[in-house]
Amino acid sequence: MLAHDSIWDVTPQVQQWQRAGERIGFVPTMGNLHHGHLQLIKRAQQVTDKVVVSIYVNPMQFGVNEDFDNYPRTLEKDTQKLENLNVDMVFTPSDDSMYPEGVENCSYVDVPGWLCQQLEGAHRPNHFRGVATVVTKLFNIVRPDVAVFGEKDFQQLMVIQQMVRDLNMPIEIIPEPTIREGDGLAMSSRNQYLTKTERQKAARLYAALNETRERILLQNMALSELEQATIMQLEQVGFNPDYVAIRRTDNLQEPDTSTDSLVILAAARLGKTRLIDNLRV
Amino acid sequence: MLAHDSIWDVTPQVQQWQRAGERIGFVPTMGNLHHGHLQLIKRAQQVTDKVVVSIYVNPMQFGVNEDFDNYPRTLEKDTQKLENLNVDMVFTPSDDSMYPEGVENCSYVDVPGWLCQQLEGAHRPNHFRGVATVVTKLFNIVRPDVAVFGEKDFQQLMVIQQMVRDLNMPIEIIPEPTIREGDGLAMSSRNQYLTKTERQKAARLYAALNETRERILLQNMALSELEQATIMQLEQVGFNPDYVAIRRTDNLQEPDTSTDSLVILAAARLGKTRLIDNLRV
Repeated sequence: MLAHDSIWDVTPQVQQWQRAGERIGFVPTMGNLHHGHLQLIKRAQQVTDKVVVSIYVNPMQFGVNEDFDNYPRTLEKDTQKLENLNVDMVFTPSDDSMYPEGVENCSYVDVPGWLCQQLEGAHRPNHFRGVATVVTKLFNIVRPDVAVFGEKDFQQLMVIQQMVRDLNMPIEIIPEPTIREGDGLAMSSRNQYLTKTERQKAARLYAALNETRERILLQNMALSELEQATIMQLEQVGFNPDYVAIRRTDNLQEPDTSTDSLVILAAARLGKTRLIDNLRV
Repeated sequence: MLAHDSIWDVTPQVQQWQRAGERIGFVPTMGNLHHGHLQLIKRAQQVTDKVVVSIYVNPMQFGVNEDFDNYPRTLEKDTQKLENLNVDMVFTPSDDSMYPEGVENCSYVDVPGWLCQQLEGAHRPNHFRGVATVVTKLFNIVRPDVAVFGEKDFQQLMVIQQMVRDLNMPIEIIPEPTIREGDGLAMSSRNQYLTKTERQKAARLYAALNETRERILLQNMALSELEQATIMQLEQVGFNPDYVAIRRTDNLQEPDTSTDSLVILAAARLGKTRLIDNLRV
């Protein structure tokens, strides 16, 4: 496996592969790789000839009071996992090379309007600007044909898809379903922040989404009441929910009676850990 | 010459050229081609194997009270000129294909801070956002190795250069000096808005920049006084100046005593026509 920390080494190597007719798959990560990430990589390997994985904890997408400093960094273990999967290249840029003039002075990409302002966007101001910008930068460095993103970050996936469409990026975005622990908790690097007691409770988030799904299908309660009921249910087991929202799958807007495809999205804190999850109805 | 108005036809053709080892040059224009444009194209032809020219009057970079509707559109003549120059492809997208959800709903690129807020940015709010966004879109559609921009739009050139650097776009930006009429007036599609009398006066803008340059070299007057003197001089011959600014060539900031490379930038209205020009000292 090639390992590059310099932007200047990545592009020529990828171009060499592309000139040889090979299709490039890309999986951007913040490292601390778990089975969810590995599933994204396997999917990329199924549909392309060479797979590049980036490991970069992007400061631009963290808020001032968020966990940038404490975000788990486990580069050696990550590299070993990528070796075992026969990944072709790992790219691990430094902050200095990604933001040589500082995060504040870097040109940025914004997806306008409603999609970025609600749910995660409402609770994490400028989060999606940071995501859109670093993904644009990584896309320009790696120049992949295909990139794979997890459905666990459902709103992020939609933001990336809109950005790619709006800015005519010549890249196919492939969504990959969420991978879960045995008890249903969506895999996430942030799960390791949980205490043992919290970890036992954490799967109740997914359980609550499933119960909400059942109740939506029964059709005997207004969606806004269901959202409130789920929030109360989560509070009762010790969560501090940021939101529970039942939305249209295609654009995350509030559904009307004609909507036939719904997704339930939730974010909730358990102690100091913020968990997010979603479930299609 | 290939002529495409569909985004979907451009990328595959360029990729075919690139797979054959050819380097792609790109000149984005708003059409109404004059010798200034043709010079950009010739420069692109000198350094690449295939040259793509886009003709697109981008609504996102025009303000509400600006000349978007009246901007001269002369597609047939333009196409003939490009044929005569042996350009390899002309790309003429429609507004519907560039902004299918409307300009307001399109993801955008912003170059932050000072560079975009002053001079042209101060007088044309969101102008550079529109420029950065459409250039990003065109870059993603055409995927050139090299793009040529004129120094006449000096601040625009710097914005594009910063955007390319910040977002790691794998494209070399080549600046090309301003082409002038016999009397010194910088070539511009907007010159044709001038009445005959205004046209005779118009060259006084460049003359004023030259006189200012001489006076800078004499070093007997503060730069801010020189700026004011040039503004008054332009007013006396009938211009309505937006700004005259003597700045550092490398970042357009105000110079200090250690600055050894200066540029004089000016924008001024003559009747209904807004002219811009600049001159390095």
